[in-house]
Amino acid sequence: MEPQRRPGGRSTRVREAVLDATTAELAEHGFQGLSMESVAQRAGVHKTTVYRRWRGPEGLVADALDRAAGQSWPIPDTGTLIGDLRGLTELLRTGFTDPESGPVAAAFVTAGMQHPDAAAALRTYYTARHTEAAVIVERAIARGELTPGVDGTEIVRFAVAPLFHRLFIAHEPVTAEHARRAADAAAALARSSWPAEPCTP
Amino acid sequence: MEPQRRPGGRSTRVREAVLDATTAELAEHGFQGLSMESVAQRAGVHKTTVYRRWRGPEGLVADALDRAAGQSWPIPDTGTLIGDLRGLTELLRTGFTDPESGPVAAAFVTAGMQHPDAAAALRTYYTARHTEAAVIVERAIARGELTPGVDGTEIVRFAVAPLFHRLFIAHEPVTAEHARRAADAAAALARSSWPAEPCTP
Repeated sequence: MEPQRRPGGRSTRVREAVLDATTAELAEHGFQGLSMESVAQRAGVHKTTVYRRWRGPEGLVADALDRAAGQSWPIPDTGTLIGDLRGLTELLRTGFTDPESGPVAAAFVTAGMQHPDAAAALRTYYTARHTEAAVIVERAIARGELTPGVDGTEIVRFAVAPLFHRLFIAHEPVTAEHARRAADAAAALARSSWPAEPCTP
Repeated sequence: MEPQRRPGGRSTRVREAVLDATTAELAEHGFQGLSMESVAQRAGVHKTTVYRRWRGPEGLVADALDRAAGQSWPIPDTGTLIGDLRGLTELLRTGFTDPESGPVAAAFVTAGMQHPDAAAALRTYYTARHTEAAVIVERAIARGELTPGVDGTEIVRFAVAPLFHRLFIAHEPVTAEHARRAADAAAALARSSWPAEPCTP
């Protein structure tokens, strides 16, 4: 049996191992508990390699986010705007409350508040996610559910913002009902006479 | 001339001095740079007092938030729902981008993501602010602009959430236009057929 090997050269394999270890460490200890030594040990890589390439915990987080930016959210495709938006906000809610993925996602958000590199990586990450999820609105326009000109990324932001606000700002509980209401609010907005010109980013 | 003295006993004055010092230190160094020694020195209080009463930086932040929870936002009263909501979101935007108050507010949010005590204090703080700001919706109902039953705190949350999301999650710029559009979206929602039953908190 060949050992399972990641595609790519040695440098790619080291990066994958280190970022996997970073994610696992974030899940267990959060951003404050992220240590270069523990990541190196977990990845089976010499710690000088980790220091040289990623400099500090914020470098690890930024690179893990860069890698994650290339990975899609599974965008719901239910056949209706409301169904898709409800699927999206519920996906987000369960992702953040899941005992495995939740702490990692929260660690990314925390890191973004503490380091400009992590903040820049988060911005790239979320821009990619919002652009992808905007297909929900584009499909609704194609089906005739919405009039052309509705800004998909802005509707997506309105759907998800209330959940992030509860989770990370006001520290209020987020139930399935909150996720559904945020989706329904975004759908109502998309259909309303609320100005639909695209917003300068 | 009598020296200017805060009202209350010695314990109250110590608390005021320490929390003022905490706020000043947060403005200069953020939450990560908050040191018990610097706060004690700035407040002119022995550091053992600060350690005994507040235990750590998160205790200082939680108490500063408790004090702030009793201080109101200046809620706009322009005579229209849209004017009031626009005033509210613009107030928030300028508060977070102001070179003096912005870093303190951001430090509070950052602390909330790192310590349960700070998170609990933030929750109390924002619950008080949302409840206060809900008067915007109550006035609109009294004027006949909105039908009774619209949940004021939820409309307020929808108005402010997109700004927090840009500032602290996606790290996107927040312009006056973003603040206005978020207010307009919340106003459109308040007027829409979007379900208006109060949401279980």
